[in-house]
Amino acid sequence: MKINKCYRNIEDSYLFSTISKKVSEYKEKNPQADIIRLGIGDVTRPLCPVVTEAMHRAVDEMSKIETFHGYGPEQGYKFLRDAICKNYKELGVDINSGEVFISDGAKSDVGNILDLFDKENTVLIPNPVYPVYVDTNVMDGRKIIYLDANEENKFLPMPPNGIRADIIYICSPNNPTGAAYSKIQLKKWVDYALDSKAIILYDAAYEAFIEDDNLARSIFQIDGADKCAIEICSFSKTAGFTGTRCGYTVISDELKFDGMSINKMWLRRQSTKFNGVSYVVQRGAEAVFKEEGRLQVMESINYYKENAKIISDLMKNFGTWFTGGKNSPYIWFKCPSGMKSWAYFDYLLEKTNIVGTPGIGFGENGEGFFRLSAFGSRENIIKATERIKSLKALAQ
Amino acid sequence: MKINKCYRNIEDSYLFSTISKKVSEYKEKNPQADIIRLGIGDVTRPLCPVVTEAMHRAVDEMSKIETFHGYGPEQGYKFLRDAICKNYKELGVDINSGEVFISDGAKSDVGNILDLFDKENTVLIPNPVYPVYVDTNVMDGRKIIYLDANEENKFLPMPPNGIRADIIYICSPNNPTGAAYSKIQLKKWVDYALDSKAIILYDAAYEAFIEDDNLARSIFQIDGADKCAIEICSFSKTAGFTGTRCGYTVISDELKFDGMSINKMWLRRQSTKFNGVSYVVQRGAEAVFKEEGRLQVMESINYYKENAKIISDLMKNFGTWFTGGKNSPYIWFKCPSGMKSWAYFDYLLEKTNIVGTPGIGFGENGEGFFRLSAFGSRENIIKATERIKSLKALAQ
Repeated sequence: MKINKCYRNIEDSYLFSTISKKVSEYKEKNPQADIIRLGIGDVTRPLCPVVTEAMHRAVDEMSKIETFHGYGPEQGYKFLRDAICKNYKELGVDINSGEVFISDGAKSDVGNILDLFDKENTVLIPNPVYPVYVDTNVMDGRKIIYLDANEENKFLPMPPNGIRADIIYICSPNNPTGAAYSKIQLKKWVDYALDSKAIILYDAAYEAFIEDDNLARSIFQIDGADKCAIEICSFSKTAGFTGTRCGYTVISDELKFDGMSINKMWLRRQSTKFNGVSYVVQRGAEAVFKEEGRLQVMESINYYKENAKIISDLMKNFGTWFTGGKNSPYIWFKCPSGMKSWAYFDYLLEKTNIVGTPGIGFGENGEGFFRLSAFGSRENIIKATERIKSLKALAQ
Repeated sequence: MKINKCYRNIEDSYLFSTISKKVSEYKEKNPQADIIRLGIGDVTRPLCPVVTEAMHRAVDEMSKIETFHGYGPEQGYKFLRDAICKNYKELGVDINSGEVFISDGAKSDVGNILDLFDKENTVLIPNPVYPVYVDTNVMDGRKIIYLDANEENKFLPMPPNGIRADIIYICSPNNPTGAAYSKIQLKKWVDYALDSKAIILYDAAYEAFIEDDNLARSIFQIDGADKCAIEICSFSKTAGFTGTRCGYTVISDELKFDGMSINKMWLRRQSTKFNGVSYVVQRGAEAVFKEEGRLQVMESINYYKENAKIISDLMKNFGTWFTGGKNSPYIWFKCPSGMKSWAYFDYLLEKTNIVGTPGIGFGENGEGFFRLSAFGSRENIIKATERIKSLKALAQ
């Protein structure tokens, strides 16, 4: 048996393991240190009451023969797909429930969707980037072109002149930079994709953090996107589902390449290699869209957003260049005094006991930048900003 | 963008949709008919109390900030992997928790594991077969060789002389035939795989139904299997998790091809394209292995096994040739009077109002055979056998 040779080409990422090692070493030397972790992109607030109530009810249903649920539809229960369609309607986006596919999370869909595409396609990926876009394509042996995201374009690169690609990754609001595309900017990407017969894989996992009207909550708010884009979304950051696992992918019936419906291909893929999401989890996800669910979920999002505002106000006070902080849970800033990412990591850990994420971990263009996350307790966020202020740890 | 052309070659299976259409039409013409469905391979009994109690507790944990769980390990929580290792130990199989990977079900793993293997490999698949083995390989464009399972070899084909394959599928106890390999037979398969440097994908989804000591509950009960086999297992049939979604795959640290550890490759695949199974579901799965959990789960399995015995006793009374019925929830029998599978389906539906599954739906070699499932209520099973008896619907 011959293995998939492409696996030899995947680079190991040591980003989070290196961070964890450095923090352990520091703690060993400084056992009294009160470490504040603002590095990880994981939520910290619990599931909201309507969600856990719905899950309890669903578990009860599973315990009785009359209400037990066996295999569900691979595409997801219609009650959840309908709720998602209704939610899109409020954004002015018309989709039908056959265009929605429920999954166990955005990461699975981002990876598995590549099954549908030829290995000979060229892929366009911004740098810095969420490493999964790169690794999943390396596993398939596709050629990757990197697109520079940098201070000049505010980490929102626009379609490049004279470069052709077949598969384009866009994540907005972006992980790791927190930058979000405006509708006008996204229209240029849609036109570029339509012109070059490319497909856009649009990662909208952080859309719930958007508050500015000129920014897109969904790529389907842009004319023509139904003919060139797939949207991948998640309950992880919207409703704290990182450990509960539910996401969804929207593929318009209009999306066709080589005369094949991508929606029908994905349905075939999912019916063959997937058996749907847990009934209990789908009932929990459905509750997110109920009136009370929306309110409860927004309370958590607003809490994180207020955290992000506190951190970005600090940046403004220091005159630090940054992206995100608004419409995003991430603050991506330029390290002071021209420090490199890892040097600043060490400096911040030692001087303030704050753990963040070095930008270089997301690609070359992240060098000299740093990410802080707003997914923490208010108490810790305030303590962290006070330490940074008093030690002038952001002073140029 | 160019699509994966292999998708043009996947044949649509109309098996279950045709069954459903025929039943609807029959019901329309005969609204009073008391239809008994013994066609589907889905469980009907609810989750057992220890499982739902564990899930309720886990949902409660998710509702409080102190006990909330965000992203879990992609490979699965150690508490569940440890419980699985302990369970294997009782079968005499030594595995460590790094060799166990928790997933959302066997179907996902059966499909996704192919990511690790080159497209140029040749695949050996028995016929008749669970269609997913075929379709997932057609999607990748691999060459498939079919191995005849038939009356002569009791639907348990042995390694073919003079045929070389790289990837070998074995499902035991088998879906759809209910036939299960003995340890002696499996040893021949392991030796064949080791000789030809092939990998065995061993689907053990129905292992919990095995009661005969000479049959293998796990391929790792066979010497040498750790160096040539991957075992894929599931809580679906063991504990009624078809709608709850949890499975696991075991890959020994010893399994190496082209100098690469398949365990490490799968870990990389899962860490990149998967984000683990819902915490709530993993707590439910863990409960299956607790002392009370085992008892409760065995109660359901014994219920289905008693159903299977009732159906197979009927076969014996009629002198009908069949496989399964013991060590399996399926009874796979030869249609009477040389009838073809669909003809017998129509005959059984009209004469007895029983719905089964035509063998031809699982491949050419299923022609003339028929599958009944024991996943029903005792009442229905008894009613069904009485109808078959009184109408002599199995008489040659």
